[in-house]
Amino acid sequence: MPSEFDLIRRHFTRPSTHTDLAAGDDAALVRIAAGRQLAVTTDTLVAGTHFFPGAAPRDLGWKTLAVNLSDLAAMAAAPRWATLALTLPDIDENWIAAFADGFFDCAGRYDVDIVGGDTTRGPLAMTVTLFGEIPAGAAITRAGGKAEDDLWVSGQPGLAALGLACLQGRARLADTRRALIALHRPTPRVELGLALRGLAHAMLDISDGLAGDLAHMCERSGLGAQLDAAALPLAALRETGANEILARHCLLAGGDDYELLFAAPAAKRERLAALARRLGLPLTRIGHLTAHTGTLSLRESNGDMRPLAPSGYDHFAAA
Amino acid sequence: MPSEFDLIRRHFTRPSTHTDLAAGDDAALVRIAAGRQLAVTTDTLVAGTHFFPGAAPRDLGWKTLAVNLSDLAAMAAAPRWATLALTLPDIDENWIAAFADGFFDCAGRYDVDIVGGDTTRGPLAMTVTLFGEIPAGAAITRAGGKAEDDLWVSGQPGLAALGLACLQGRARLADTRRALIALHRPTPRVELGLALRGLAHAMLDISDGLAGDLAHMCERSGLGAQLDAAALPLAALRETGANEILARHCLLAGGDDYELLFAAPAAKRERLAALARRLGLPLTRIGHLTAHTGTLSLRESNGDMRPLAPSGYDHFAAA
Repeated sequence: MPSEFDLIRRHFTRPSTHTDLAAGDDAALVRIAAGRQLAVTTDTLVAGTHFFPGAAPRDLGWKTLAVNLSDLAAMAAAPRWATLALTLPDIDENWIAAFADGFFDCAGRYDVDIVGGDTTRGPLAMTVTLFGEIPAGAAITRAGGKAEDDLWVSGQPGLAALGLACLQGRARLADTRRALIALHRPTPRVELGLALRGLAHAMLDISDGLAGDLAHMCERSGLGAQLDAAALPLAALRETGANEILARHCLLAGGDDYELLFAAPAAKRERLAALARRLGLPLTRIGHLTAHTGTLSLRESNGDMRPLAPSGYDHFAAA
Repeated sequence: MPSEFDLIRRHFTRPSTHTDLAAGDDAALVRIAAGRQLAVTTDTLVAGTHFFPGAAPRDLGWKTLAVNLSDLAAMAAAPRWATLALTLPDIDENWIAAFADGFFDCAGRYDVDIVGGDTTRGPLAMTVTLFGEIPAGAAITRAGGKAEDDLWVSGQPGLAALGLACLQGRARLADTRRALIALHRPTPRVELGLALRGLAHAMLDISDGLAGDLAHMCERSGLGAQLDAAALPLAALRETGANEILARHCLLAGGDDYELLFAAPAAKRERLAALARRLGLPLTRIGHLTAHTGTLSLRESNGDMRPLAPSGYDHFAAA
């Protein structure tokens, strides 16, 4: 049986491109360019809480890094380095090899050097801490929204929640393919996040559900928000065969999406439309921020207004 | 029941002193001084593998940060920021409060800002990623040892292993107090690590056992080593009432020590003795590096030489 050291070495040592001293010593050493801030985020995935114990290891490897990339994208930071803490119940070389493949697929795609790790025995879980760089002062936080800013969302939020509903037998769809890809191999919106520097006033990624994350932005910005039901991007959800109630629920309250939600002034609409075309990524204007602090509402197509419950996904409350 | 967000906010939000944007957004933002490298390390503690499920939460909070501080100390880096990923089986506010107290005791003692975290539901485990600063080029790696360098070790390695042996009923001691403190609340040698810049050629911390970690240093430095049995610091182990065989086994093969093992030229002996006095921390010269690549030996008091087995602690091999 290979030792912990052998395991780490065999599967998790890959060439690094922008690291002074990579994994293998007590700590890694990297250098931050002058005039930059370091952006740091960490996320854990736990078997049974964030994924089914039998989930495909290649997808898990991808996703464990992707969810962290999404957080950096939401700050408009460029990802650079990551550490991986991996807890395994036993040694299954095939599993480890597939996990590492998925993980390094994602790392390679977004030019992330792996600079450290820890492999331990225990219930299956993985924690990534991701570091990125950003010109000092250029970060887009949750707090910068201004009243009357347009609210935009990227891609198709709700698909991942729809995929989860199918896996759990809570929904039956004609076409599950896109929903399952969204759930298992989310695409972090790294290029979009970087391109929004100078365009967006406030931004976050939708990991806890659109309404819940919008509430976070409103709280931090000291504002309220109004969404337009007619503007919500439901097309890709409807195409799966989901009915209107399920589609809207997944869109507004579903978690695990990793799309970006951002606030931008109306004067930037044309530039944002051009950006969407350049990236080949839909950007949908779904409402606007208001001066009514703490009030989130949804305007129905017939003009009726109703409160928008910020019922995001909460691991503890949901359990 | 408080939500995940409430929990994090209530117990893990503390004032930060050297952070541009602390926890609460998608990522934290910090600034690295010009001419410095960033040192990064990560370590996980898992219930049942690294500690008993009923371990005191205050000690656990301290230790989960301390073991990472030890890694930075072993690079001669100054600790600055940490993230904490905490996985909890359920909500026990008393447990969480005590854990946070221990964690922030340690953070305050070593001036570490907590810049992010993730709280998830699952089997009890905690991962800290710690990062610090070091003047570019000043890090002390494992690879810099030179043949004939003295080998030094700080404090009393072996005490933690002795404490564990007691808890597991494998040893009975007259006095377990110091051994249990070493096991539950290790003191990371941060001040020593920083003071060894310019004095030590190579360094690491003893987390896997003295002999095993010495083997790592030899491998990285392309050298061998010879330890002198008569020089090994056994006094504190003997004082607990441990017999000679157990004391030596704990000293050479015990894990969880977090003392520093370092190589320094003979010309630095006086400065190292003065440093030990200034820090009030014993530094013991236990042998030297040799040109016999890969050969680790122990010279007994009677002059006999025997091979030193690098049987460090390995979570997988040990299980």
